[in-house]
Amino acid sequence: MILVGERINTGFKDIKQAVLDKDPGPLREWAQKQAAAGATYLDVNLGAVSADAAVMCWMIEQVQSVVETPVSIDTNKASILAEAIKVCNKPPLINSTTAAQEKLDAFLPIAAEHNASIIGLSIDETGTPKSADGRVEKAGMVLAAATEAGIPPEHVFLDPIVMPLKYMQDQMREILEAVRQFRLFSDPPPHIICGLSNVSNGTTHKKLINRTFLVMAVGCGLDAAICDVTDGDLVDAAKTAELVMNREIYADSYIKPASA
Amino acid sequence: MILVGERINTGFKDIKQAVLDKDPGPLREWAQKQAAAGATYLDVNLGAVSADAAVMCWMIEQVQSVVETPVSIDTNKASILAEAIKVCNKPPLINSTTAAQEKLDAFLPIAAEHNASIIGLSIDETGTPKSADGRVEKAGMVLAAATEAGIPPEHVFLDPIVMPLKYMQDQMREILEAVRQFRLFSDPPPHIICGLSNVSNGTTHKKLINRTFLVMAVGCGLDAAICDVTDGDLVDAAKTAELVMNREIYADSYIKPASA
Repeated sequence: MILVGERINTGFKDIKQAVLDKDPGPLREWAQKQAAAGATYLDVNLGAVSADAAVMCWMIEQVQSVVETPVSIDTNKASILAEAIKVCNKPPLINSTTAAQEKLDAFLPIAAEHNASIIGLSIDETGTPKSADGRVEKAGMVLAAATEAGIPPEHVFLDPIVMPLKYMQDQMREILEAVRQFRLFSDPPPHIICGLSNVSNGTTHKKLINRTFLVMAVGCGLDAAICDVTDGDLVDAAKTAELVMNREIYADSYIKPASA
Repeated sequence: MILVGERINTGFKDIKQAVLDKDPGPLREWAQKQAAAGATYLDVNLGAVSADAAVMCWMIEQVQSVVETPVSIDTNKASILAEAIKVCNKPPLINSTTAAQEKLDAFLPIAAEHNASIIGLSIDETGTPKSADGRVEKAGMVLAAATEAGIPPEHVFLDPIVMPLKYMQDQMREILEAVRQFRLFSDPPPHIICGLSNVSNGTTHKKLINRTFLVMAVGCGLDAAICDVTDGDLVDAAKTAELVMNREIYADSYIKPASA
């Protein structure tokens, strides 16, 4: 399971304040905490705090000063991406392009040039499709464009766009069906990822809903998630789901006794 | 979600001893405990403790003396079933027939006569198929024979035969795929059930594995399980999975705050 730590994002108050104050502490602490929890990538999101690529570079440098874990550059601005990717010590995961031609033209060449992986949202300038078929169409456009740009499928992470269970309950099955179909696009298949926490927006039982949806999505072929990697129950559930999918070999010690 | 309480089974020492001693206490206590936890049916299994149908009838009567919950008559002997079904206050769930002609001929007429539901294992006299296709073939035979016997699909519970993750890890995906295909047999579809606890046989983290597999199976279309209904985390996970499948309407109060 590829786990992308969601926490270094100015959407969280402590990170926003740290970026405003140029205080490296919270960024470094969350980098270490998420790396220790087993994150494969650490998402770094500047959000609306600044339009200055130098600030994003500073954030990435704080992360890289304390851990070896590669970063995920989370920005919708190609100009920020172009600068940020230059300071990455390892090929990053770019978060993200959409199927809109303008986005593809801007993001894919940068990914190809730097041997980076890239998340492709199943969305375009007209919005998020409601059906599985609509999602498959948009994701297919991203994958085809990535292939044309010289990016191999194993560097492409397709994202079905997870909606909040509470407000869009009828879309959940469409999302799972889209995941199932993404799997069939190529051999080897692309990765399939989601921004997990959105599923529990506004709900009372967030952690339970996050881990239940994640397990169901893994059962459909999802193999990556942007999530709270420090949620031990979530990570244990993901590991168990991977065993059921026969992606890892079972051993009694696959999780630590205390966490079961 | 249709939950069948597994606990009144002589495979458990306390129940075995109670049946040997003709002590109604443990049977009544487990009946009440499982009914309070929300069981839809209570499985009653005499096992090898006796070949006397009167003992099975006594067990069912103990359950019915304290709760309204219908029973699931768990026996592979048609002679025991024929007697036990007569003492049931409500149409029971018969657990189970296989696809073997001899079994179908013996069990289906009894189910039809008593308006009972019946579990059909995807297995026959040659054993358990290893592939999804083999399971689908056997389950299809049960469903066809049940239809011919006058049993409607909504009274049929197809069972893909769940194997232990630890010893047959490569079969897990076949089982999930079988569930997915069972769903397509008829409209309305038959129920799909499994004996859940088998999946965690011999493992260190039984509850985690049980609930993870259950959630994945619900994602494939499973809507019933024979399981430990007193495991609150398991029931919460099942309820959440049902919400994702849009089978129940979301409400913040769908589980009690304490259990999340």
